[in-house]
Amino acid sequence: MLIVKKFGGTSVANKERIFNVANRCIEDYKNGHDVIVVLSAMGKSTDELIAQAKDINPNPSKREMDMLLTIGEQTSVALMAMAMESLGVPAISLNAFQVKMHTTSVYSNARLLKIDEERIRNELDSKKIVIITGFQGVDKLDNYTTLGRGGSDTTAVALAAALHADMCEIFTDVDGVYTADPRKVPTAKKLKEITYDEMLELASLGAGVLHNRSVEMAKKYGVQLVVRSSLNRSEGTIVKEEVSMERMLVSGVACDKNTARIAVIGLQDQPGVAFKLFNHLAKHNINVDVILQSIGRDGTKDISFTVAKDSLQEALEIIERHKTTSLQYDKIDVDDKVAKVSVVGAGMISNAGVAATMFEALYNENINIKMICTSEIRITVIINEADAERAMVSVHDKFRLGEM
Amino acid sequence: MLIVKKFGGTSVANKERIFNVANRCIEDYKNGHDVIVVLSAMGKSTDELIAQAKDINPNPSKREMDMLLTIGEQTSVALMAMAMESLGVPAISLNAFQVKMHTTSVYSNARLLKIDEERIRNELDSKKIVIITGFQGVDKLDNYTTLGRGGSDTTAVALAAALHADMCEIFTDVDGVYTADPRKVPTAKKLKEITYDEMLELASLGAGVLHNRSVEMAKKYGVQLVVRSSLNRSEGTIVKEEVSMERMLVSGVACDKNTARIAVIGLQDQPGVAFKLFNHLAKHNINVDVILQSIGRDGTKDISFTVAKDSLQEALEIIERHKTTSLQYDKIDVDDKVAKVSVVGAGMISNAGVAATMFEALYNENINIKMICTSEIRITVIINEADAERAMVSVHDKFRLGEM
Repeated sequence: MLIVKKFGGTSVANKERIFNVANRCIEDYKNGHDVIVVLSAMGKSTDELIAQAKDINPNPSKREMDMLLTIGEQTSVALMAMAMESLGVPAISLNAFQVKMHTTSVYSNARLLKIDEERIRNELDSKKIVIITGFQGVDKLDNYTTLGRGGSDTTAVALAAALHADMCEIFTDVDGVYTADPRKVPTAKKLKEITYDEMLELASLGAGVLHNRSVEMAKKYGVQLVVRSSLNRSEGTIVKEEVSMERMLVSGVACDKNTARIAVIGLQDQPGVAFKLFNHLAKHNINVDVILQSIGRDGTKDISFTVAKDSLQEALEIIERHKTTSLQYDKIDVDDKVAKVSVVGAGMISNAGVAATMFEALYNENINIKMICTSEIRITVIINEADAERAMVSVHDKFRLGEM
Repeated sequence: MLIVKKFGGTSVANKERIFNVANRCIEDYKNGHDVIVVLSAMGKSTDELIAQAKDINPNPSKREMDMLLTIGEQTSVALMAMAMESLGVPAISLNAFQVKMHTTSVYSNARLLKIDEERIRNELDSKKIVIITGFQGVDKLDNYTTLGRGGSDTTAVALAAALHADMCEIFTDVDGVYTADPRKVPTAKKLKEITYDEMLELASLGAGVLHNRSVEMAKKYGVQLVVRSSLNRSEGTIVKEEVSMERMLVSGVACDKNTARIAVIGLQDQPGVAFKLFNHLAKHNINVDVILQSIGRDGTKDISFTVAKDSLQEALEIIERHKTTSLQYDKIDVDDKVAKVSVVGAGMISNAGVAATMFEALYNENINIKMICTSEIRITVIINEADAERAMVSVHDKFRLGEM
């Protein structure tokens, strides 16, 4: 088997953990597998580099920032290779130049285009464990780029896809995907399996185990992902196209408090208004999540939507800038004390009762629903932030997720 | 003009110094020059990386060590580019991959083979200051290599040669080349000019301002070097092919205490003995310096030579290993309390009195000479280590080097 194993920054934060990772990889190697290891920068080292940069220049160019940040992963991979060598196992570290990890030129948020597998194949053929820098790439002019949030997961999945790996293991500090955040919902259970689509909904809803980009890529190329803990030997959760038939209707409950609601009130009720509003925001790369539009009345309508909390100020400024020109609205109403609670499940496509069950759970707790938004496999409600934990527990219990 | 400016680790050790260097480079840039900056790793960061590696693996492979060490220079250049950007000047940092700094595959001690000037030219043409990592290269299989001691100087000179720069300035913590070490000889004077050959002799004799490899390369390609201080504006010393006619006979006095004398006594007086002895040492990369062979007597002869102190133990082991086989000597005598004092001067080629003057100075101080060795532009004596400072001052005064 060819196995890609990805370890995040906390898993390689110090000498002891580096050797822990080295030993886990060597186990697979000694069992006859080809092993590719993808690493993030050690512990808080990326934050330290950013602080060092900001001390020199509060607003450094993204090109130079990427040039600086790539050293974090290069440090991890070199030290990991040394650790494996000291354990008597041949290993080699490779960075983005060496594996020709080609990306777009969007510094700090590049997209992977192509990986040259030749070098990696050669090193695997010569029976080495191959250790590759996550998060980084090179553009066509040979500049370093970085892949943005969740970049190392994306690197791992892309390598697994390019080399047709049998498995891509993503090691984190949790031991799999749960029916809900176990810190918030004590009865939460670990899932054995989950579909790509469910994982995508959960990731975008703040479950935070895997980044969406990596799951999208895994789905696209059919890479079988396993999410598991770097700290223990538990089996983890498998992410794949289809899961066994006996699975529950709902696979998990997620909560995201990094959200704020904006309501633009008194927009003109005519074609193109929503386009103009969200186009202004898109131009500034502001991601809009749940959108709700009221029915028109008296020739006006209201549009409400949520954004990440750290985009709130910018979003408000952009909208206000166009108040008297393209948008022509009456006023803005903001609520930054909201939370987004969702249930996700591939099974709900063919079952109409899911939404009603969720709303019942919230009603039983006397929790007011401010917005509702559904997709084929997800139901999301926006509620008061203060009600979030209570909502999660009640929904989780209502769907009996703890009993799976 | 195209100017290459190289700054060592102490010159970029902290934020204040980084901006000091940035400002000096910007000055040239604003005067209309094209500027290439070559940087070493910040302060003690290379030592810290080595310590980090040794903690993981006391004997890491050189390949992985080079992979780790190259991040030191990459940090310096990225931060320097950010500093220049914050001062409103366009700048770009480039590493060994980006300038295609091709070297041999000898990790930790690679030799430069070729530099691709295209990228650098393009960046200079778009009016950027180009900041390049010193010390590092890539081999033909895309592995990182490092150039060994004095590597950043070599990078700077190689860039100056490849791009036909008008000047290559090497910034150090001294403000030029002196007639002797000013800390040892208070009357030492700074030289305005010195020839490549004199500089080579001084460097190999422990004057320590420039590394031999960079001077050799400068001589080969006719790169005009300037050695000057990064801390003040003094004019520095120009290193070039020929210096003005009025120059003194002797340009400087150097002292090297990192030396030990080995005498192999009672070797058979027959052809091939010296070859065998030094071949054994060469195979283990032990550099031998001053060599002295006694006249044969009673069918035996003695060979004395000096090695660097840190090679002494290994050299002794190698010789003893061959005592009863190829070498057949009587005994070894070691003296590790010696120093090497030399006078260097291109003018002495045509003047026979230099050696006598030097010996007279030592005789006046009652200093015993243990070995003598001369080249066309150098006279070296081996004396007791305890006499070294006194010897330097007396020789310096005798040649009136303080009065130039």
